[in-house]
Amino acid sequence: MRKYSIGIDYGTQSGRAVVIDVLSGEQMGEAVINYPDCVIDERLPGTDILLDHDWALQNPDDYLHVLKSAVPCAVSASGVNVDDIIGIGVDFTSCTMMPVSHDGRVLCQLDQYKDQPHAWVKLWKHHAAQDEADRLNEIALNRNESFLNRYGGKISSEWLIPKIWQILNEAPEIYERTDYFMEAADWVTMQLTGNLVRNSCTAGYKAIWHKQDGHPDKEFFKALDCRLENLVEDKLHGEVIPIGSKAGTLNESMAIMMGLRPGISVSVGNVDAHVAAPAVNVVNPGKMLMIMGTSTCDILLAEEEKTVDGMCGVVEDGAVAGYYAYEAGQSAVGDIFEWFVVNCVPESYINEASDRGIGIHQLLEEKASRLEPGESGLLALDWWNGNRSTLVDTNLTGMFLGMTLLTKPEEMYRALIEATAFGKRMIIETFREAGVPVNELYACGGLPEKNKMLMQIYSDVTNMEIKISESKQTPALGSAMFGAVAAGKEAGGYDSIVEAAKNMAKVKEESFNPISRNVEVYEHLYLEYKRLYEYFGKGENDVMKRLKSIKAKASREV
Amino acid sequence: MRKYSIGIDYGTQSGRAVVIDVLSGEQMGEAVINYPDCVIDERLPGTDILLDHDWALQNPDDYLHVLKSAVPCAVSASGVNVDDIIGIGVDFTSCTMMPVSHDGRVLCQLDQYKDQPHAWVKLWKHHAAQDEADRLNEIALNRNESFLNRYGGKISSEWLIPKIWQILNEAPEIYERTDYFMEAADWVTMQLTGNLVRNSCTAGYKAIWHKQDGHPDKEFFKALDCRLENLVEDKLHGEVIPIGSKAGTLNESMAIMMGLRPGISVSVGNVDAHVAAPAVNVVNPGKMLMIMGTSTCDILLAEEEKTVDGMCGVVEDGAVAGYYAYEAGQSAVGDIFEWFVVNCVPESYINEASDRGIGIHQLLEEKASRLEPGESGLLALDWWNGNRSTLVDTNLTGMFLGMTLLTKPEEMYRALIEATAFGKRMIIETFREAGVPVNELYACGGLPEKNKMLMQIYSDVTNMEIKISESKQTPALGSAMFGAVAAGKEAGGYDSIVEAAKNMAKVKEESFNPISRNVEVYEHLYLEYKRLYEYFGKGENDVMKRLKSIKAKASREV
Repeated sequence: MRKYSIGIDYGTQSGRAVVIDVLSGEQMGEAVINYPDCVIDERLPGTDILLDHDWALQNPDDYLHVLKSAVPCAVSASGVNVDDIIGIGVDFTSCTMMPVSHDGRVLCQLDQYKDQPHAWVKLWKHHAAQDEADRLNEIALNRNESFLNRYGGKISSEWLIPKIWQILNEAPEIYERTDYFMEAADWVTMQLTGNLVRNSCTAGYKAIWHKQDGHPDKEFFKALDCRLENLVEDKLHGEVIPIGSKAGTLNESMAIMMGLRPGISVSVGNVDAHVAAPAVNVVNPGKMLMIMGTSTCDILLAEEEKTVDGMCGVVEDGAVAGYYAYEAGQSAVGDIFEWFVVNCVPESYINEASDRGIGIHQLLEEKASRLEPGESGLLALDWWNGNRSTLVDTNLTGMFLGMTLLTKPEEMYRALIEATAFGKRMIIETFREAGVPVNELYACGGLPEKNKMLMQIYSDVTNMEIKISESKQTPALGSAMFGAVAAGKEAGGYDSIVEAAKNMAKVKEESFNPISRNVEVYEHLYLEYKRLYEYFGKGENDVMKRLKSIKAKASREV
Repeated sequence: MRKYSIGIDYGTQSGRAVVIDVLSGEQMGEAVINYPDCVIDERLPGTDILLDHDWALQNPDDYLHVLKSAVPCAVSASGVNVDDIIGIGVDFTSCTMMPVSHDGRVLCQLDQYKDQPHAWVKLWKHHAAQDEADRLNEIALNRNESFLNRYGGKISSEWLIPKIWQILNEAPEIYERTDYFMEAADWVTMQLTGNLVRNSCTAGYKAIWHKQDGHPDKEFFKALDCRLENLVEDKLHGEVIPIGSKAGTLNESMAIMMGLRPGISVSVGNVDAHVAAPAVNVVNPGKMLMIMGTSTCDILLAEEEKTVDGMCGVVEDGAVAGYYAYEAGQSAVGDIFEWFVVNCVPESYINEASDRGIGIHQLLEEKASRLEPGESGLLALDWWNGNRSTLVDTNLTGMFLGMTLLTKPEEMYRALIEATAFGKRMIIETFREAGVPVNELYACGGLPEKNKMLMQIYSDVTNMEIKISESKQTPALGSAMFGAVAAGKEAGGYDSIVEAAKNMAKVKEESFNPISRNVEVYEHLYLEYKRLYEYFGKGENDVMKRLKSIKAKASREV
């Protein structure tokens, strides 16, 4: 009588499928498939067509390949009976978007367009629509568009409208030929079910959609470019439905391809970050999930829509139906530590790690763990890749302060970790000051798995307990949970994600708890961080921006 | 008919002698002797007596050993006839001081005191008199002592009076037994000549002596400690005579020991930094010499005594008789680059340097040379060892700003060099603003020899030509020049150091000249540096000091 749900998680370089026991949340099987074309950022596959520097494309066939290969592998590894699989959920990187023909094919899958770069999937980190984003923001600001408030004042070049506009500007024939511009998450569920529906998460965060107000009006799009006036009705149609809804049922041909039973429920698509929230039981207001890796994404549930400085977006039904989900972010976290290890760790440390057969991060963590808070005398601003929340400024840069001739690498490493923790606290305090409560902290992703000292520092700096996801595939678990919800209670699933979370969500028994004497020291250090954050980040001294412009000039002259 | 002069330069770890042709300045011979007991900072030689952390002593026998060994070696290497040697000059680290008995012996040379640490020579970097220095500064400030102005507002713990006071506090019997407290430079000339004279350079910079006002008055010394009331008349007697004067003639016994002719002229002692000035022709007002090594010392000649923020001292006849010599300093220069190389250079760079058989500094210089000014986007404050001039604040620390995920080690290395150049410019501008002209720049020491990029950056940042000492033993050459002046024109030498410099001073033909497009970029960067210098250094945000006090507290608790 046990029932199972499949979660399919599409990452940047690979896709994975998991088979989850609906009653217990236990993972029964798993399979990972690397995309054959991976990230396409040099030349179009099978051609000599070169891509510009900021481009990042993907091949939609690779997504189908995951369905065809990873799902049967995971099912086979799980040993479960396919008849007991009741649902499927899908999550994706976002905004990963493509121009789609009326028959559901991405234009690059049609022979006549396969040599056109703009016919391919634009991956989330395709950054070539910066000009369009800049113009959009300028126009929106001039028109006083209220939606800007919901996105921390800025629409990113990574999002849907700038990417569409780039296509229009650079390949108008592709724009014309496109019947639907779609998020990859919605495209995959459309492949599975045959239904064109769009999920409230990507629509809200990436397509400037609002549950009450819908998309920006025609006048706005016309102000961008008269050819965009009818974009929404012409090319963005398809109902937007809340996260957790059923997109449809698995169709015959896909069922055969995946070795599954046709007719099982498929939930509407989701974003890899947001889908993780219910997987750690973040299904109630006041709970915040930190997805911590190279960068960090925060998902916070709340009952009200407020304007909060520098968040990435707030969307009703954005992560859990019935609540507002706020997204905030730190644009570099693990990336900073990696930069440090590649550029700043001396040979003697490399040798010591190698002699002891441990990794360099592990060695640094070990040495840094022996330091008391404040003992290094160092303080950093974690802006190596700009600051997303709360300043929304890509032109800010890193800062390090307090070095003496006795400063050691592990002290700098620890100070960098502390800086990201201070950045996190700044986000939390900004939410609270705006009237959005943050009562509980959860973490998932690569960093919490790898670095206990880091998690303890985050707990000490925020003075909050932090619970850690038990699953190593948190997004895939979340997708499977949504699959179980799409299936519904009658079929052996659940009627709501909150119900599903009660049984299927997993946090580790051991959590991180603030140590009071550390909290006290970090209180002082945080005040110093905050003062420098404001000094360098809020216009008092724009030295970082001036240096960037001097740098740009010097680089041009070389 | 050629005549020769001997220069003896006492450094921190070794002493060297050179034989110089008086007419041409050509070096004929050289010998270096490492001090057998080197720097005594752990235990007294031949005993189990441990020294405290901040102590640094030396053995006066090692100084005699240099006379006995290095001088004959240098003469022998030179091949000159000893009858043609007309003068000797001596320079020393300073304030390197000792308690001396009436018979000229240092107390540690007497059997009954050799187990008493305070009976030994206190090396310049003996830092255990910090309490005394702090109290002295506090009392001087309260009494509004005008001498503070001449020393940038602070008497250093490295200088004579705090060191004497420490002896009084910790070993009153040594204080009592001492007949003269002497600078090592004066002690060595006393050994050579039998005459007790003191040089105006160490008296002025290190003993709070002023040509018109003499030492501080009795009331001041009494205010420090009633037992110090008669310090000057009891234990600091001996005439203070200007740099370049004759201390006496070489006595019989020393002449025999050194293999020289008795009766040749010995100039009054000097400081290793200041003695270098005439050796590069810095003998006129407006010329500044930078002695660049682990730290940097600047000597600037002027016609007037002014109050200049944060200089180390101003002394009439301090480097060249007839002029005021201002001293300023940067407390870490080469030390910062060395810190960087030891702590922040990744294995791949070490391997590249090793594969190519070059040093890591050379590799970094090579890579950094390919960067344009401003191209790194980085800016640093060079306060890894505090800031001597112009802020006189040991509690300031380093700062680095502008890092991105693409920042490379050579960019950071270059930014550190630039930071020290900006610090130099700050010193120059501070002199100029106080009405002390700086018209020409000269450099000697280890760094100008080793790093051409560094010198070009200094030239670009200051927008001044920089001439480099040709001699690799600039202080020893300077001492030999003073030896020739002590001998006088009649004996084949010179009647003034200005005359001597005309023939004997040596700068390289090739100088460093500002490149106008670099000057322009550095003008902008310097303004950014200056703003942060003031923000962090002048009380607007004392974060560095607060971090230091948090650090001190955390370290105590460990």
